[in-house]
Amino acid sequence: MASFLKQLEALFPADRLLVDPVHLAAYESDGLTAYRATPRAVAIPETAEEVVDAVRLCAEHGVPFVARGSGTSLSGGSLPVEEGIVIALNRLNRILKLDFDSHVAIVEPGVLNLQVTQAALPHGLHFAPDPSSQQICTIGGNVAFNSGGAHCLRHGMTSNHVLGLRAVLATGEVVQFDGASRERIGPDFTGLFVGCEGLFGIALEITLRLTPRAECFHTVLAGYESLEAAGDAVASVVASGLLPGAMEIMDRLAIQAAEASVKCGYPENAEAVMIVELEGPREEVAADREKLAALVEASRPAEVRVARDDAERAAIWKGRKSAFSAVGRLSPDFIVQDGVVPRKRLGEALRRIGAMSREAGLRVANVFHAGDGNLHPLILYDGREPGALDRAEALAGRILRLCIEMGGSITGEHGIGVEKRDYLPEQFGPDDIDVMRRIRLAFDPDEIANRGKMFPGAEAPALSQHGLHPLEKAGVISRE
Amino acid sequence: MASFLKQLEALFPADRLLVDPVHLAAYESDGLTAYRATPRAVAIPETAEEVVDAVRLCAEHGVPFVARGSGTSLSGGSLPVEEGIVIALNRLNRILKLDFDSHVAIVEPGVLNLQVTQAALPHGLHFAPDPSSQQICTIGGNVAFNSGGAHCLRHGMTSNHVLGLRAVLATGEVVQFDGASRERIGPDFTGLFVGCEGLFGIALEITLRLTPRAECFHTVLAGYESLEAAGDAVASVVASGLLPGAMEIMDRLAIQAAEASVKCGYPENAEAVMIVELEGPREEVAADREKLAALVEASRPAEVRVARDDAERAAIWKGRKSAFSAVGRLSPDFIVQDGVVPRKRLGEALRRIGAMSREAGLRVANVFHAGDGNLHPLILYDGREPGALDRAEALAGRILRLCIEMGGSITGEHGIGVEKRDYLPEQFGPDDIDVMRRIRLAFDPDEIANRGKMFPGAEAPALSQHGLHPLEKAGVISRE
Repeated sequence: MASFLKQLEALFPADRLLVDPVHLAAYESDGLTAYRATPRAVAIPETAEEVVDAVRLCAEHGVPFVARGSGTSLSGGSLPVEEGIVIALNRLNRILKLDFDSHVAIVEPGVLNLQVTQAALPHGLHFAPDPSSQQICTIGGNVAFNSGGAHCLRHGMTSNHVLGLRAVLATGEVVQFDGASRERIGPDFTGLFVGCEGLFGIALEITLRLTPRAECFHTVLAGYESLEAAGDAVASVVASGLLPGAMEIMDRLAIQAAEASVKCGYPENAEAVMIVELEGPREEVAADREKLAALVEASRPAEVRVARDDAERAAIWKGRKSAFSAVGRLSPDFIVQDGVVPRKRLGEALRRIGAMSREAGLRVANVFHAGDGNLHPLILYDGREPGALDRAEALAGRILRLCIEMGGSITGEHGIGVEKRDYLPEQFGPDDIDVMRRIRLAFDPDEIANRGKMFPGAEAPALSQHGLHPLEKAGVISRE
Repeated sequence: MASFLKQLEALFPADRLLVDPVHLAAYESDGLTAYRATPRAVAIPETAEEVVDAVRLCAEHGVPFVARGSGTSLSGGSLPVEEGIVIALNRLNRILKLDFDSHVAIVEPGVLNLQVTQAALPHGLHFAPDPSSQQICTIGGNVAFNSGGAHCLRHGMTSNHVLGLRAVLATGEVVQFDGASRERIGPDFTGLFVGCEGLFGIALEITLRLTPRAECFHTVLAGYESLEAAGDAVASVVASGLLPGAMEIMDRLAIQAAEASVKCGYPENAEAVMIVELEGPREEVAADREKLAALVEASRPAEVRVARDDAERAAIWKGRKSAFSAVGRLSPDFIVQDGVVPRKRLGEALRRIGAMSREAGLRVANVFHAGDGNLHPLILYDGREPGALDRAEALAGRILRLCIEMGGSITGEHGIGVEKRDYLPEQFGPDDIDVMRRIRLAFDPDEIANRGKMFPGAEAPALSQHGLHPLEKAGVISRE
């Protein structure tokens, strides 16, 4: 390690190679705040070449590295490893090319999601994936975790908007997968890389598809007297054949939190609100809004509001997009969970989560992308209470198992990271996981890229078990 | 091999295990008719279990296998290998599940592309990818080669419509990648498998996305006095922001062939025709057709026809979809080429292909998916003339190199197969190909699945070289 660090010092000037514990502290955690780990150093490259040099040095010495953008991962995807380094990509924040004729942007991994859309909007285009963290999260992180967002119902996930990429693999090889063309050759290596959770290497240049921003939006907020009624309303919109840009539900607890935090003017006594947003060409939206109005009316809402202008549209979305952080007002700590159930079974899933919440004696706020069955239960707990985190994690585990049992998935958009690695064998068989591992090894034979993420460890006890987490036992992470 | 064949006989009854040369002859070639190879046997499983048994036996004995559907590959993707067997999947032709509420179909690999759409149409849905061979090609083949079609301009390729799959890998392991949910976990293994050209294993059950068939179509045929004028018309539609369902061009030779073959009523004196088809909700199409009419008028066509009903729409498409086979009337033999150029440079590409055609003294008919820059030059030659195939292949090679030089690709939708394997190193660097190989080996360590396809051989001379093809030298294939 000493010789490795010495060589790293030769690559980076002192102000871009952090080794002082005070400086390292800023990197010891990410959006999954319950876990912490201090890396040996943080390298801050300013060019792709410096990233390649750092990765090659790691490969040579077998030192693990974790690539990090804004550190917004909710599954601990950018949690450092103590025996390795962090490669911070924030300064690789250049938009390298904008081709509005071909609807293509080429960007570095540290570019913020919203920056791309801001650059494209004057030309009527945008980068469609819009995770709630879009103001701060980076494209590199979106690629690593195949980020979604409220509008992926209509537009698809990040993988639908990445045309190609240049990457340095964990071996130090630099490869180019695909490019601006829609047609590709052979297997989808770009798609394989998108969602790899940093286990294959680091994307250096990402070719994004820009798509026309809808000409027109129509945003409706409906309040309901029960969560089930909101779920049924969503089901009726899905069944009608309409394809809204987004379809969201928030329950009473989430509404109260959002209201207290950003004063978004949601109906405070509703048990649930549904947000539906139509988008598209003016003529299509004009026709669809009639159909939607009839469906909403038939769903017997207590209250309906239609945004009359951009300001009212923004107000409706403000409550939804700030919901996660707003919940922090209700409880000192909370776990943001992420699971998927078949959307036809949303009502059933919510009822059963409600029962589990009561049994566990822990409040659960529900905020979810209802249109695609992607649940985000927020489990509230007080970390100062002994055993509270363990109880919250046990409840999170029960919810994940419910998702699997119902034919859904243990993650919709946050990824496996460290948080859910021990649930992977509950969703996949041993052959499936073995193939995944072999693919990982084909890119990273020494498992130095984001080591410890996604795959269950050798011990593999569930995260939700009481007592020390396996990563803690192994000394990889420590909790406060 | 004797012991292998004996064990294979134990798995399949005599009428489903072909070993007689007379029966094998039907399997010795595919859509790339210039190449032939006789396999040791053809197994015809009727269940997924029989496919798994056959693959496991091959894995145990290290015997190569080639999966085959309808044998429509235009790149020799289903060409047998002489030291191995063919696994014919035509009897795995069951639609296992149709869920019209969730817009999902689960099918076996031998189901025909058009069968899926026919089953879904009564519910207003369809399977969007529509290769010209859709009446006969199988979903398994579409998956292996990530098939496109005229409408992939708007709808995307096969990979955009496969949600998940169950497959037997070349190792004999049975895996399930993804499922009916849009959200997936980690890297896109399904997308990796789609386009693998049969090199990873055999898909057993494929979960397809059904999408709403457009409410309304508007199909326009315009004749032009030059090929460039048609190319410019396409460029102006692209630049306008309209997103047609399809945008095709055929040149004079292709028009004449189609006219002689299916009497589609195309303007016979035109140098080129453009077919543009708008699709979508009625209101959107109504608005867009005005914009399109203005653009077409500005492109100064010699003649314009608008389909007034389904019959007229079908007539316009009939000429285009039969173009490949129709060209057979003009010449005893022809090579269907497949390359991509940036769509802004279509005019330039066509001019240079015209010059190459004159230089080589070989006629080239052009039929292409103009909207996405996917060229299909048909190189006409007479195989009875000594050296004619070699000259045609040399011209094909020059066209592929032109595509690479212009920033395009050596295949848009037909795949690499055997035909283009020696061009792979011209488009990809050694590190890229090395990674591709490692991934292949992670799925198939003994390289028994569709051996000899996609990757250049050890000798790697270009297909277009004069004299014996390297596969012939190696005795893998023989030509008549």
